[in-house]
Amino acid sequence: MSTVPEDIDTPEIMIDHDVLRRNIDRMARTVQAKGLGLRPHVKTHKIPEIAALQLAAGAVGLTVATIGEAEVFVEHGARDVFIAYPLWIGPRQAERLRRLAATARIAVGTDSVEAVETMAASLGDAAGRIEVLVEIDSGHHRSGIGPAAAVEVARAADRAGLHVTGVFTFPGHSYAPGMPTTAVGQEQEALREASELLAAAGFDVTRVSGGSTPTATLTEATAATEVRPGVYVFGDAQQLELGRCAAEDIALTIAATVVSRHEGDDVVPRRVVLDAGSKIVGGDRHAWATGFGRLLDHPQARITALSEHHATVVWPGDGELPALGQRLRVVPNHVCVAVNLVDAVSVLSGGKVVDRWRVAARGRNK
Amino acid sequence: MSTVPEDIDTPEIMIDHDVLRRNIDRMARTVQAKGLGLRPHVKTHKIPEIAALQLAAGAVGLTVATIGEAEVFVEHGARDVFIAYPLWIGPRQAERLRRLAATARIAVGTDSVEAVETMAASLGDAAGRIEVLVEIDSGHHRSGIGPAAAVEVARAADRAGLHVTGVFTFPGHSYAPGMPTTAVGQEQEALREASELLAAAGFDVTRVSGGSTPTATLTEATAATEVRPGVYVFGDAQQLELGRCAAEDIALTIAATVVSRHEGDDVVPRRVVLDAGSKIVGGDRHAWATGFGRLLDHPQARITALSEHHATVVWPGDGELPALGQRLRVVPNHVCVAVNLVDAVSVLSGGKVVDRWRVAARGRNK
Repeated sequence: MSTVPEDIDTPEIMIDHDVLRRNIDRMARTVQAKGLGLRPHVKTHKIPEIAALQLAAGAVGLTVATIGEAEVFVEHGARDVFIAYPLWIGPRQAERLRRLAATARIAVGTDSVEAVETMAASLGDAAGRIEVLVEIDSGHHRSGIGPAAAVEVARAADRAGLHVTGVFTFPGHSYAPGMPTTAVGQEQEALREASELLAAAGFDVTRVSGGSTPTATLTEATAATEVRPGVYVFGDAQQLELGRCAAEDIALTIAATVVSRHEGDDVVPRRVVLDAGSKIVGGDRHAWATGFGRLLDHPQARITALSEHHATVVWPGDGELPALGQRLRVVPNHVCVAVNLVDAVSVLSGGKVVDRWRVAARGRNK
Repeated sequence: MSTVPEDIDTPEIMIDHDVLRRNIDRMARTVQAKGLGLRPHVKTHKIPEIAALQLAAGAVGLTVATIGEAEVFVEHGARDVFIAYPLWIGPRQAERLRRLAATARIAVGTDSVEAVETMAASLGDAAGRIEVLVEIDSGHHRSGIGPAAAVEVARAADRAGLHVTGVFTFPGHSYAPGMPTTAVGQEQEALREASELLAAAGFDVTRVSGGSTPTATLTEATAATEVRPGVYVFGDAQQLELGRCAAEDIALTIAATVVSRHEGDDVVPRRVVLDAGSKIVGGDRHAWATGFGRLLDHPQARITALSEHHATVVWPGDGELPALGQRLRVVPNHVCVAVNLVDAVSVLSGGKVVDRWRVAARGRNK
């Protein structure tokens, strides 16, 4: 029996509403039980209906990556949004932030004196209406600075008239085997040190924001006030292979059809080709990943190559290759980039399509 | 002086119209001089305005990857379209092919008896209006079959009432250092053998279709009737690193802003972070690539990591790091997946924005 409903044409992103609800409720309960706020990162799904479920489950607000994402979610009713990104705010961006701040509580990230001075100059008399959190590098070495440097940036922001409320970090180095525990330790130490230094410098530190899906449930309220996991709503092959979710927690799959089938020989590998390529699965692949995603119902199969519209799937030695025309469910490696490739998703419950949701913030890169 | 016009907000895809025209004309002249037809793959750009330039320069028709792409380009005036993909055609897909064939010459790919029998059954009395090209595996080992097996598929298609007109292949293994020459040799040998076997079996072989950007200009009219390069219109970091285009041939770049800057120390690398991540650059990276794309004006810099909205760029030892707020041009590794991430692109000429083109076939995955 196919697990892809007959009325779905492939390739198509399918969301299991029952699993989604369970994931949302479980994370909300776990985080709330620790005394932490949950501020989910909605760049993962970009779908207002899912944000509404997260807020109904008790989320304290939303996290986004861009002003454009903030605009979409505020338009759909969000009233407390953190743009967790070191924004460079010129006059055109400032005008958009001003409009957002007229209807919602808006916080933004920063990690340099230059950025806060430019932002404040662009915002003019609206500067005090924007909250600023300084980004700390807790070991990922992307954006963010050390705790001592963060005090200098906070002072510059304060001098420039911005409203400094705390610090944040993203422990991106937790996305590797064996790393979540190490990363959360570094994350918590960096957040504690930075918030203590800021408090000692006279700042009223009300927001200490951490977290990622691998580390959110490991974070303690002694180190942070809130966490910002995103991927947990759907799960993906990366979280599966890191052991941070189980197969039954996967809420998003890509329905695909076997379009080419090869028993293989001494020269060519034994494989099938699916019609879901990198233009719907996304091409992300960490060095430690077993392939370019997984098949939900065939854990032993390996996606060895991904072209724009082809997934090449190698089957284990003695298992029968699926038939031509058979429909399979692909789990993307990184679900955030997969959702961003489609305009809408099919929502399933009990194996049937019950709704269709628009990916309202798709492509809002700025 | 910034090479990004002041009126562009980042991140944004920019197309240099002058370089684009030169690339289109050069490939058209080179291929036509060999006596080959040029049938450009428009999945690269998905933009009707660019397809119109290619047709005006003498292209014999267009190549697409999906029925949805064919629909967009036929709607915009294309009258000869090859869907170079082993389609699995059920009743809903057949209805769409029928509608396409009412206004355009439509050819599709196949590589199995099952697929042609299912397609013919779904098409019913419209089967004879669809041209079929059998896909040959010339060494890429994705979809496609051997020349002898191709004759069996062609016979099955003919029996089922489809119109078999030839063969095609995609030498995808040409996308690696030193491989274009080897791959084009295998490609031409496979196409020759397959078309000779088909002719010997009584088929009127009028289409022998090969090519990719690395091999198109190496293909000879003795082995093929047409080639299907796509990337050549823009160039990208992969073609640059393979030596298949020069920096001055790059027609598409992503305007990005330096949002985070770090001189580095013993622990953290010396780097800048740009606001163009995998959600606009695309995450494709071959093992042989030097990074996740290049900076057009700073060939020595390396994009060592790409998150959804961050590109981490490591600068060589003694070069001065660009300033915060500086705007740079990123060349994506694989341009086809970058264009598919945006709804529209800015068109530049003489360093100024002169037009804006909609990516009309973005996301048309089925």
